[in-house]
Order: sequence, then C-alpha cells, then structure tokens
Amino acid sequence: MTAFVDIPSGSDFPLENLPYGVFIPSGSDRPRPGTAIGDWVVDLHALEEAGLLDTAVFSSTTLNNFMAAGRPVWKAVRARLQHLLSADSGELRDNETLRSAAFHRQSDVTMVMPADIGDYTDFYSSREHATNVGTMFRDPDNALLPNWLHLPVGYHGRASSVVISGTDIRRPQGQTKPGDGPPVFGPCRLLDFELELGFFTGPGNELGQPITIQNAADHIFGFVLVNDWSARDIQKWEYVPLGPFLAKNFATSISPWIVTLDALEPFRCAGPAQDPEPLPYLKGSGDWSYDIDLEVGIQPEGSAGDDVVCRSNFRYMYWNICQQLAHHSVTGCNIRPGDLLASGTISGPDKGSYGSMLELSWRGTNPIPMSDGSERKFLQDGDTVVMRGAAKKDGLRIGFGEVSGRILPAHKG
Amino acid sequence: MTAFVDIPSGSDFPLENLPYGVFIPSGSDRPRPGTAIGDWVVDLHALEEAGLLDTAVFSSTTLNNFMAAGRPVWKAVRARLQHLLSADSGELRDNETLRSAAFHRQSDVTMVMPADIGDYTDFYSSREHATNVGTMFRDPDNALLPNWLHLPVGYHGRASSVVISGTDIRRPQGQTKPGDGPPVFGPCRLLDFELELGFFTGPGNELGQPITIQNAADHIFGFVLVNDWSARDIQKWEYVPLGPFLAKNFATSISPWIVTLDALEPFRCAGPAQDPEPLPYLKGSGDWSYDIDLEVGIQPEGSAGDDVVCRSNFRYMYWNICQQLAHHSVTGCNIRPGDLLASGTISGPDKGSYGSMLELSWRGTNPIPMSDGSERKFLQDGDTVVMRGAAKKDGLRIGFGEVSGRILPAHKG
Repeated sequence: MTAFVDIPSGSDFPLENLPYGVFIPSGSDRPRPGTAIGDWVVDLHALEEAGLLDTAVFSSTTLNNFMAAGRPVWKAVRARLQHLLSADSGELRDNETLRSAAFHRQSDVTMVMPADIGDYTDFYSSREHATNVGTMFRDPDNALLPNWLHLPVGYHGRASSVVISGTDIRRPQGQTKPGDGPPVFGPCRLLDFELELGFFTGPGNELGQPITIQNAADHIFGFVLVNDWSARDIQKWEYVPLGPFLAKNFATSISPWIVTLDALEPFRCAGPAQDPEPLPYLKGSGDWSYDIDLEVGIQPEGSAGDDVVCRSNFRYMYWNICQQLAHHSVTGCNIRPGDLLASGTISGPDKGSYGSMLELSWRGTNPIPMSDGSERKFLQDGDTVVMRGAAKKDGLRIGFGEVSGRILPAHKG
Repeated sequence: MTAFVDIPSGSDFPLENLPYGVFIPSGSDRPRPGTAIGDWVVDLHALEEAGLLDTAVFSSTTLNNFMAAGRPVWKAVRARLQHLLSADSGELRDNETLRSAAFHRQSDVTMVMPADIGDYTDFYSSREHATNVGTMFRDPDNALLPNWLHLPVGYHGRASSVVISGTDIRRPQGQTKPGDGPPVFGPCRLLDFELELGFFTGPGNELGQPITIQNAADHIFGFVLVNDWSARDIQKWEYVPLGPFLAKNFATSISPWIVTLDALEPFRCAGPAQDPEPLPYLKGSGDWSYDIDLEVGIQPEGSAGDDVVCRSNFRYMYWNICQQLAHHSVTGCNIRPGDLLASGTISGPDKGSYGSMLELSWRGTNPIPMSDGSERKFLQDGDTVVMRGAAKKDGLRIGFGEVSGRILPAHKG
C-alpha cells in the first residue's frame, strides 16, 4: 500500500498503521481525534464533517465514543482511511481545501489524552519480572507466589494521574521506613520506571455479565506504551497487605498514539507455554501474544540523547491480553469504553531486557553506566525516561512513537 | 429551625440535614440534583431556574459541578435552602406553581448515582477490623502489620462497579483454592458485606500539589453509606502480593443521599488516641471523627423485615478523613471533584459491632442466628443487606437513609 503523502523511511506510521490519538492544532484550544501518517496528523472530525467518513463519533474531544462503537466500525473506518489516504484514490488527495484543513504536521500539534479513562488496571504478567522481584524481596527458591501461574495477578490503579507523554513528573514525597529506624517523611529515594504496554477497551459489558475469553479481543481497541512510574521505597513500606497505593498513584505516562489490534495483526505470535494448564475460563484459542520490540532510554539532564538501558519484547508476557480481560470481568466487573489495562513490567530472560531499574541495577547493587560518565541505580532529578516500541517484519514497521517524561525535583519541605 | 413542610417524627431529613442526591421523577428520564426534606425531594434545578438560587451548577445530571464549586458555595447554598424551606419565609412556600413543580414525594422518584466517580479508593482504617483480620489470618500476637499505626493503609478500588442502593448484586464467580487441592472455578462461597462510610471529594488538587492536612476538610463534600461487597474465598487466593482485585470489583453499593460535613458539624468528636504520634504531614488540629450510629440488617428472602446483625459507630475509626485525604495526595496524586474515598470496614470493640460477616461469624465458626430460624456464616442467595446510619443528639437527628442490595444467585456454568 502506498500513501499519497510521503512516508519517511523508518517511520512509525505507514499506511498500514493508522493509530488513533487526540491532538490540539497550533492556535486552537479544542482537542480533536486524529490519525498519524508519516509526519502528519489527519483530523478525523474534518473528514467526518466533509462526509468522507460514515460515522458520527469524531466530534468528541476524546476517542471514547469511537471505542464504544465496536470492532465492525473500527474495521470499516480503518479500511476507509486506508482508501482515502492511498495514492490510488483522489477523493481526499485532490481536495486541496479539505487537505489543508485536515492535515497538520505532527511537529505543529500538541497531543493530549486520547480518552477519558474510567478505570485503570495494572497487571503483573511477566514471569521474569515477577520472578526477579520475588528473588530480590522474598525467596529465590520460591520466587513466584503460589497463585501466579494460575491467574493473571493484577490490581486497580489510579486513573486521575494517567498523563500524556511529555508531562513532567514531580518526584513524590512520602513515608518510608529506612532500616530498623522509625518511619520518616521525605522525597522518594528509589524512583523507578516500569516498561509496560497497555490496552484501551472497546464496548465493554454490563455489570454482572462477564466477557468470555472467546469474545475478549472484540473488546480491545488498541495499545499504547505505558511508563508505570514507581516509588520503590514508598512501596516497600506501604504495600502489605492491600498492595501498591501511593507508590504508583503520583503518575503513569502513556504514549499518545493508540496502535490498533488490526494494525498489529501480522505480528501476533505464540506466548510462552502455560504450565499448569489454565482453568477453562482462561483458556482461549489462537495466538494472542505480539512480537513488539521495546526499549527504554534515560537521558540525563544536559545530555544530547538518551542511553538505552533496556531492550525487551512484548511477546515475553506469560498472560495474554484476552486472558487479562476475561479474568478482570469474570466476577461480573463492568468494563467501559476507554478503560486502560496495562501489562505490568515487561522483562525478558536476559539482564538487558529487564523492564525496571529495580531489576536492571538489581536493587542498586549493579549500577548502570551512562555515556556521560555518570551511573544510575535509580532515577535522578532531571533524567528524562523515553520508551519506544515497534513491530517489524518483512519491511513493514508498525511503530508506537514514544512515551517520555522528565523527573522534576521533589517539592521542598 | 422549622420547615414549612411537615417533617415526620424520627425523619432522617430535617431542615438541619439537607443532603444532596440525584433523582429521576416519575414519568421522566432525566436525572436531576435534589435535596431531601422529610418525605420530599426538592428539585434544585427547578429552584435555580426560578432564580431562587444564585448558582449555575444544578442543570447537570450529576453533582460533580456542585462538588467542584467549593465550600463557600456549599455553605451559601445550604444557608439559602434552609431559608427558602423554613416556615418563616414565603418565597418558596407561597409560590404554588414552583412548589408543585419542584417538590416530589421520595416514594415517587428513582434515586440514581449522585456523581460520576472518577476514582474510588478504599481505606482500612478501623483498628479493630484490621486486628480481627490479622488475628484470624495471621498471628494473634502480631495482628496489626508494622505499617498500620504509621499510615492509613488503603488501595485503589473499582469505580465502574459502584452502584446505587437498591441495585441487585449478582453473586460473583471466580477462582478459589480450596485446601491443598488445585484451584477451582465457581460461585463465590464466602460472600460478605463490609459496613463503611465514604466521602465524596470537592475541588481537589493539581497533579504534583498535595492537599495538606490543614486544607483537607475543604476538599470533602459529604458522606454516604458504603457496602463494600467482598468475596472472601476469591480474595484469599488472589490478594498476595498486589492486594484485593476481583474479590471487590464486582460491586460496591452506596446510599443515595450525600450528608454534608456542615450538617454533621454538631457531631464532630475526638477519635481514638493515636500512639505512636503520626508524622507531621498526618498531624492535624481539631477533632475530625464523627459520632454516627450505624447498623447492618440481613433480610432473608421471604422475610418481612431484617435482623440487625451489627451495631457500630463511625467514631471507632482510628484514621480520620483529613488524614486519609492528606495521605492519599501527599505524593502529588490528583483528587478530582466526585472521587469517592471509603473508610474501610467500621468495626468497634465488642462482637456485636463488627462490620462484616467474616468477623461476626469469626470465619464461619460462630454462625449468626436469624429470626426465621436459619443462621448465617456468610450471605445466602436472596438475602437483602441493609445498612442505616444516623447521628443523634439533643433531639436532632441527621440521618443517612439506607443502602440496600439483594443477592442474586450466580450465573450457571
């Protein structure tokens, strides 16, 4: 497929991708849904208003309505956009007035949150990550807890503090307990990232009516990169027995472009073998993992670029997205359009693929050297963390763009 | 103060209360904000449209805008409503057209969710409850975990499944692990209630800017009764290490009327002494507990009424609402208007004051006799759980109404 606009070599956004996001054009203050192609953003409301799309979902300032519309609509819009943007079609290409109104350079727009997130859930689905954490904090011989291989462990996160890529992250203050002394209050000393992917949900279900694993994929709209910022010292003291709370709720960053399941279809692959066999409600058919390369860079303040500290892949995840969604709703919990369900830290088998500083520096015992001569056990003020992702095969590249965030120093006092 | 409408003796809703809720009048489908007085609901949008209120927040179908307006507006509206509804004022009393449009019998309306809940948080702030649970499941000699006396332990809950009183509750299915055998899937066998109060938040804070304990009360709009339905057998298997997830996310019921802090002001009282002394960020001034009597009844299917199984009081809570809100936001987590923060199970010192079947039946070892001759260890299909609350002093009664929910049998298969 060839688009009528130029797609730079190595672009994350060829005609086969067409991710969805919400942007504010320069000089405007109204967010509007768009898709990315090459270096451009295309205003979907402008296309809808011009009668080129057979929908009524893009006048909103979020994508929730489009997410609610369901897979047949998603497929129809995708096919229609591929047609409108292809070199073989004149409908949009030859309409100069509409083109100039609907096309914006990505460098000229501000990306904002793509959806009102009703609820945010975070899973813990990488066996390597759970094993690393269990080895460090519990027992290396029994690193995985007894439930871990039987169900996708997860917890409810904080929706209000999910922010768009580029948002500065204030180092949190909180209560920690150093050694045997009494608890103290102060800035987090062990600030970390977690490399994750998250998916936005589609139509969802009524309270009391679970989504079966067979139907789960129809309720999944697409993926974003997720940086689940974590305050390890706060977490260690607070998390027993009800789980992480303040250690996670100060911020979660997401990439602005939602890459759809349809775009990623060529990259579906088998995940790790599951033994013991999952219970029937978690046992689906087909391959529901995805081969997506992921990396994390840290750019110290004043450095020209970032040092890549982690290279991982989404296919390492033990529990897949259909299993996560079926499990989440099996009690009857209602999923709404625009909920965000994140994978948990995506760690692979080798040390360079660990998805957090906690694991990369092995609790700080193995500092990571940076190209400016400094080293990192955890994140420092002024560091910018950048995560990137792309699925690549046979010359096709379906990219995610990036999610980045810079650490601001804690407030004084 | 005397209202111009008749207030039945023992009513939860005298002129001193004026709780806020959202109702749908009979024959309409549009939710609208209202206040309760005696057996009546007063349509606040009707009063606003008629120019009797100096606000522009009640045309909405939720109270979020009013919550966002802040305490000076809340106080002004309360004072104005007390004036308009008093026997000494003719402005509303003598306007028969407006009265007939704005007044509805409570028995004629349907109450709906009072707010769009952005995030729902559940604390664990009763020392007696945490001690009971720790005694049953861990070590009676070290029942409280080390962090418990130093910070208000809490976790993020599920906002989507918070439902209004009267909503039927489907018994959830899920994964449990009986004894030494493998995990199994099936209906929850240990279904429970938890007696709680929750507060809705007001204006809130920007991400990165904590709410101090000194300012916390200005961000608290008012209280509702909360039944935090719990699946104990699912919880036991899933909750390590990230906390309760499916065991709680199938439903949380709230009472429809939000009782304001201003109405409850006469009932402020000291909470339990706090030793060790809280860190400065959790150390406020003044008394921030409330003397509110609470009770829980269970009505078996086919019974004429409910058997009260628990009588407790909100003042038993160790951590107060200002401490909860200051702690929640101390990392910079942003609170939005209409967030719901619940107390955790409100258990008192004696056995009759325990706020869950888990504690009342002591893990099922002490069944509770019912007046129909049956007994309860946990909840049975067809049971209706009713919670009521009221603050009472010197002839003044500020009531909450009730929150109720009936258990439907699990889906088959």
